[in-house]
Amino acid sequence: MSVYDNLKFNSDGLIPAIIQDDENGRVLMMAWMNRASLEATMTTGKTHFWSRSRQKFWIKGESSGHTQTVKDIALDCDGDTLLIKVEQTGAACHEGYRSCFFRSITGGGGAARVTEPQLQTPEEIYGKK
Amino acid sequence: MSVYDNLKFNSDGLIPAIIQDDENGRVLMMAWMNRASLEATMTTGKTHFWSRSRQKFWIKGESSGHTQTVKDIALDCDGDTLLIKVEQTGAACHEGYRSCFFRSITGGGGAARVTEPQLQTPEEIYGKK
Repeated sequence: MSVYDNLKFNSDGLIPAIIQDDENGRVLMMAWMNRASLEATMTTGKTHFWSRSRQKFWIKGESSGHTQTVKDIALDCDGDTLLIKVEQTGAACHEGYRSCFFRSITGGGGAARVTEPQLQTPEEIYGKK
Repeated sequence: MSVYDNLKFNSDGLIPAIIQDDENGRVLMMAWMNRASLEATMTTGKTHFWSRSRQKFWIKGESSGHTQTVKDIALDCDGDTLLIKVEQTGAACHEGYRSCFFRSITGGGGAARVTEPQLQTPEEIYGKK
């Protein structure tokens, strides 16, 4: 029995992967995987995704150096979502925050409120454009 | 400025919501919301979703009593995913586990391995069918 027998990819061949910091449980990001990116993730121990906007296979950290080393891959009861625990190098977010979920909309009267420090600016991570 | 100005719903008018246990950081489930279910979640302080399979608005816990009281709602950098911290009553999973992510595919040689105890059977939660 293959791992893939338990998984349901959507009509685009994708499955969402929630990425969680193995050290402290912080949810870092959510991104999409196709079968090839999940296979590469399992083979290499580094997260690989599929970019829906760029229609492109990508390795987390390929530009920034902020790679993710996989510690555990869980699937949910319906087999249509993954939860991947990782050891995160640097900022998970391309905006330079540890987590992509750095804004809260609770108690802000409609405005989003930043809840964690920016570790680096995007220019520091990716260079000036 | 409205909260909704920061959010991107997909072509079906939906946004994925990751539900996390506020007490210990355990990721409990992922489900989808439309604008009406997010509004109801914010107004009532209890999570409401949209079922894609049943094409139906639903309140978490309406059958099981296993409701979720909202503690925080965060959005990611792209505004296309929500992270909602909740106080969870009982099992979040309809299969009777605390978390829907009760199976790991790491180190199992292809098979999924159950990683947490089943708190109740579905029959105990929903009654015999």
